[in-house]
Amino acid sequence: MDYYKKPYEKSAFEAKADAQRIAFAPVVFQVVKTMRDTGILDYLRKQKQDGATVAQISDATGISRYGVNVLLDAGLSADIVWQQEAHYSLTMLGHCMLSDKMTRVNMDFVHDVCYEAMFHLEEAIREEKPAGLKVFGDWKTVYEGLSSLPKQAQESWFAFDHFYSDRAFPKALPIVFKNAPKSLFDVGGNTGRWTKQCLNYNEDVHVTILDLPGQLAMAREQLEEAGFGDRASYHPIDLLDPSQTFPSNPDAIWMSQFLDCFGENEIISILKQAALVMTSDTDLFIMETFWDRQPQEAGAFSLNQISLYFTCVANGNSRMYHSGDMIRLVHRAGLVVEEEFDKLGIGHTILRCRKR
Amino acid sequence: MDYYKKPYEKSAFEAKADAQRIAFAPVVFQVVKTMRDTGILDYLRKQKQDGATVAQISDATGISRYGVNVLLDAGLSADIVWQQEAHYSLTMLGHCMLSDKMTRVNMDFVHDVCYEAMFHLEEAIREEKPAGLKVFGDWKTVYEGLSSLPKQAQESWFAFDHFYSDRAFPKALPIVFKNAPKSLFDVGGNTGRWTKQCLNYNEDVHVTILDLPGQLAMAREQLEEAGFGDRASYHPIDLLDPSQTFPSNPDAIWMSQFLDCFGENEIISILKQAALVMTSDTDLFIMETFWDRQPQEAGAFSLNQISLYFTCVANGNSRMYHSGDMIRLVHRAGLVVEEEFDKLGIGHTILRCRKR
Repeated sequence: MDYYKKPYEKSAFEAKADAQRIAFAPVVFQVVKTMRDTGILDYLRKQKQDGATVAQISDATGISRYGVNVLLDAGLSADIVWQQEAHYSLTMLGHCMLSDKMTRVNMDFVHDVCYEAMFHLEEAIREEKPAGLKVFGDWKTVYEGLSSLPKQAQESWFAFDHFYSDRAFPKALPIVFKNAPKSLFDVGGNTGRWTKQCLNYNEDVHVTILDLPGQLAMAREQLEEAGFGDRASYHPIDLLDPSQTFPSNPDAIWMSQFLDCFGENEIISILKQAALVMTSDTDLFIMETFWDRQPQEAGAFSLNQISLYFTCVANGNSRMYHSGDMIRLVHRAGLVVEEEFDKLGIGHTILRCRKR
Repeated sequence: MDYYKKPYEKSAFEAKADAQRIAFAPVVFQVVKTMRDTGILDYLRKQKQDGATVAQISDATGISRYGVNVLLDAGLSADIVWQQEAHYSLTMLGHCMLSDKMTRVNMDFVHDVCYEAMFHLEEAIREEKPAGLKVFGDWKTVYEGLSSLPKQAQESWFAFDHFYSDRAFPKALPIVFKNAPKSLFDVGGNTGRWTKQCLNYNEDVHVTILDLPGQLAMAREQLEEAGFGDRASYHPIDLLDPSQTFPSNPDAIWMSQFLDCFGENEIISILKQAALVMTSDTDLFIMETFWDRQPQEAGAFSLNQISLYFTCVANGNSRMYHSGDMIRLVHRAGLVVEEEFDKLGIGHTILRCRKR
């Protein structure tokens, strides 16, 4: 990836215009979300190229003409709609804000989980703690509070998490099962979503989920309901406590969208715990979205912004990593990267690691 | 102005990338503001083209390396910095976010007055009231609460207001005094900033400020301190009450950045009140920033976003108007526009109106 290695060619004049895009960015965000959620974008989509007048949109959506008008004018300036005489039509970007699933998932996550919290970003950065989390409750990390978050925030959090993993899991399965592991550890297995796919994909594998007791209870319920009771085990562990140990004899260890939840020293500690139970034949698979491995710049952009969610809301010391940083941490834990698989799902990478 | 009359040529691919810019817009906003306010941008400015490493920036600013790193990576993706090996340098846009006064004033206004309130935009639009104002207090409009806003919000509010008017007033004075008015009404005179300039500019004029009693007290203090006690009068009036009347015999009436604080019907009512005391020789000057009269699209963009401040924070029914709408309201009050002056200050327009 060769982005960001030279400055964009931009005149002072263009910079001043772009600067206003940033200065008013929160307003644009709320304008577009409101146009989406009041049904204005959907009504305009149905009118196709003919478009609609303020009065028509107001009648169709029940939003006052004044309200429709201020949103449309802001939408003109944000390239969401365009105007032919009194008729407004959706632009390509407007269509995307309405219909693209990834965009919707991102926007909902930012609104419901991050927006109010981000007001406290400077404090989070200065004090090295997730200062934005206080808008939801008095927890040290979001993980403690996840089950107590407001319903809307919780839904958007899981929708975001699952949207990305759901698209990567099918590509990951053949990679993980290439060496036919009989015993697989799903570290940070959460609701058991990945374990279930493994048990479906391969009849011979037994999966052990390593996670906090609360998450394990959720996972067990899901898996027993699906009839996988006898092929899964549950190992309660606080992965931040280096004195707690992994069970022994895994053929493979899986960590998906997991290490990004930790700071660098914590990652080294977790990987060292894993290394203790690995033999020279054990595969450790790390699946992550690394910002430098994105096929498009928009992917790098999104990941670099999501990092601030970890800073300000989640736990104050984790992030979406550069692959070079993660590989450095792998080495410091006494492991080596044997194989790398890029462009799985929406910009995921798998690092297959072994003991040095 | 010919913006917005055809859709930008944008592929579905480009739209999807731009959509992420909107979906993460509040994060970008807070990242850039935090980079500015923790001194990272200023430190990088001083390093010029050589740039600086994460360690150097961390040492210079006292921000943790982790914090510097997540901000820089988000800043790379937001075109605030660029990277040569381990060294980061400011881009033209980064310079602008740090040093351009207008950008700073806009960003502070959005952060301190609008950011938290904008979370409630959809409610404001649906319920036709400034639903965001509740983050500051339980008032019907921001004008009632202005003196009770948090200090930071109040400072950013006035800095924003004055930044724009200060650049337009010098250009407006020769226009207003061309017909040598002896008696001038400053309607919505606020802190007396314009009145003071008039009294300085022309020795023969007497100015009467029309405003709420609270504002008049502030203005009187300012003007008496400046030694203008005998050339100014103060007429208390609630301009939203059509039964309250203007004093008589003005040679000229001045309304600056004032009518945008009202809804369309209120504007007609205020202009009709003014018309009652006008003769065929009275000039009524309306100075506004109309979004369609901006020399650059960035001006239209900014004004169309500011409108949502009026929707969500100020009073729920006002906005930055299109000049065509304002001229229509002028006509409905029984007035005609005799002359128009564009491009005063930063995109201000004066409409000189007379009785029909």
